[in-house]
Amino acid sequence: MQETRLDTARIRAARRVIDPVFLDTPLYRCEALEPDLGCTVSIKLETANPIRSFKARGTEIVASQLADNGSTAVVCASAGNLGQALAWSGRARELDVTVVASRAAPAAKLERIRALDATLELVDGDFDMARERAAAMARDNDIRLVEDSLDIETCEGAATIGLELLDTAPSFDAVLIALGGGALATGVGHVVKTWAPDVEVIGIQPLGAPAMARSWRQRRVVTTEATNTIADGVAGRLPIPAVLDDLLLVADDTVLVQEASITAGMRILHDHAGLVVEPSAALGIAAILENRDRFAGRHVATIVCGSNVDLDAYHRWVDPAPNRRS
Amino acid sequence: MQETRLDTARIRAARRVIDPVFLDTPLYRCEALEPDLGCTVSIKLETANPIRSFKARGTEIVASQLADNGSTAVVCASAGNLGQALAWSGRARELDVTVVASRAAPAAKLERIRALDATLELVDGDFDMARERAAAMARDNDIRLVEDSLDIETCEGAATIGLELLDTAPSFDAVLIALGGGALATGVGHVVKTWAPDVEVIGIQPLGAPAMARSWRQRRVVTTEATNTIADGVAGRLPIPAVLDDLLLVADDTVLVQEASITAGMRILHDHAGLVVEPSAALGIAAILENRDRFAGRHVATIVCGSNVDLDAYHRWVDPAPNRRS
Repeated sequence: MQETRLDTARIRAARRVIDPVFLDTPLYRCEALEPDLGCTVSIKLETANPIRSFKARGTEIVASQLADNGSTAVVCASAGNLGQALAWSGRARELDVTVVASRAAPAAKLERIRALDATLELVDGDFDMARERAAAMARDNDIRLVEDSLDIETCEGAATIGLELLDTAPSFDAVLIALGGGALATGVGHVVKTWAPDVEVIGIQPLGAPAMARSWRQRRVVTTEATNTIADGVAGRLPIPAVLDDLLLVADDTVLVQEASITAGMRILHDHAGLVVEPSAALGIAAILENRDRFAGRHVATIVCGSNVDLDAYHRWVDPAPNRRS
Repeated sequence: MQETRLDTARIRAARRVIDPVFLDTPLYRCEALEPDLGCTVSIKLETANPIRSFKARGTEIVASQLADNGSTAVVCASAGNLGQALAWSGRARELDVTVVASRAAPAAKLERIRALDATLELVDGDFDMARERAAAMARDNDIRLVEDSLDIETCEGAATIGLELLDTAPSFDAVLIALGGGALATGVGHVVKTWAPDVEVIGIQPLGAPAMARSWRQRRVVTTEATNTIADGVAGRLPIPAVLDDLLLVADDTVLVQEASITAGMRILHDHAGLVVEPSAALGIAAILENRDRFAGRHVATIVCGSNVDLDAYHRWVDPAPNRRS
């Protein structure tokens, strides 16, 4: 494999600065899912922690560096989960944390960012407009900007999940990873392709927010005008060139899925695994539902990467219709 | 502390025979729960594993002993979770597993026991009648009977949770433990009282199945004629004297809670922690809801011990009434 921006020694070292509450997350076969999916399914569960997503693996690295350097403030743009993670990691180290998010982000995510003592700045517009605003704030105030997927700490933090995936036996045939900005897919993909190159690394994106998947297929950055998906955590329009370069080295494929498959995946995880998940976390299950033949009989791992949802929306997506209940 | 039946060295040794998929489960502070509960709350999550409950910690010990001895068969009575656990542990070691359960046990639990290749024997009657039937089958066929809470492996398996609870800093002020047959409470209680005697150990039982809590209060076995609770996992009528003796040594208190508090606890765990849990797993939250002054400002840990529920019943208990949705 050609070299990505990620560094294996730094990924191993990262485990020592990440709060253990975010490490060594459950990884288990979930047989109750298998009749619906037609393959062996293992779940890597990244939601049973104080912020209900994997993002603190990266922000723990950033915040510990800032604390070591005597920095006192940090800013990021966030679809909601990175902001919670940075708020959590920053609060633990007495940093002033500012999070810029879209006013349209899930209320539950915004509320948790505020509850974790961060300053929340809302923009009219989507995640990519929040990115612009956060960059301007960092420039104007001369403070560290954390850029999800571009900043290597966010990728290498996510990569620690890969180390844990490979610690288990037997290994998997494929790993299904939610694809948004690319930190999770390039991080986990880097580790998997380094030590278990035969394991297929597949990034999953919604058809309604396909920019990175299309970019991967065309081997050049493809942007979109807008996004249209419930999977708010992966809804970007402007792929970052350096991240695409890494993704081209570590991903074997990218798959696009329909919205109905995402809600079906959320429902299956609720009904048969007892997990409330946000749409992005169901992308892997959605991909299996749409590609049964491809995965039939294989052992597939999927990373359940977040569970921060607005309850009204969740019930609308997942609850059985009254006439479907038996 | 006077000596319980449990042995600290055996508990430590048990960690080496239990499949790691059941060990080192998530333990994390859940701040989103705290506004509703008025205290600091940490969750010990025992549901993110292949059988969605803590019970395999005990059955792993039993099944490994049986395999070591060349035994080929084992039987237990179960409210549903022990049976799944024994089926899982026995299948991994090629044992013939028979589970006796009440026909009224949750269908989801019975279905999973069958799916794990165990022979399922149903009785008309409750858990204590299943116990009688399982004992007769063991006697007639000369095979090992696993008796939940009486058999020391079931208590010492549960006690490994206590080791993990005490590994963290800061420690807790109180640990809230679902109380049924007593394996979980005496197991965790033994460890907590051995190493952290100032931490309050509290067993929680439903008012509709109060036999063990009443026995603890009266310091003698008190039986009941029937049980009436949705918390099927803890609904016993006939406390085991040896288990009560242990509970008297390790529990600081027992608390009885109403059914409405159990469903409120389930709803809070769903809405603010993203966890689908079975009623027994919400007993700790129910106890806080009913005793706010007692726990105000303290740091309380509660063990979320199982998530095997029938979906129709779960939706009935937990879903918001249409007019409550905003």
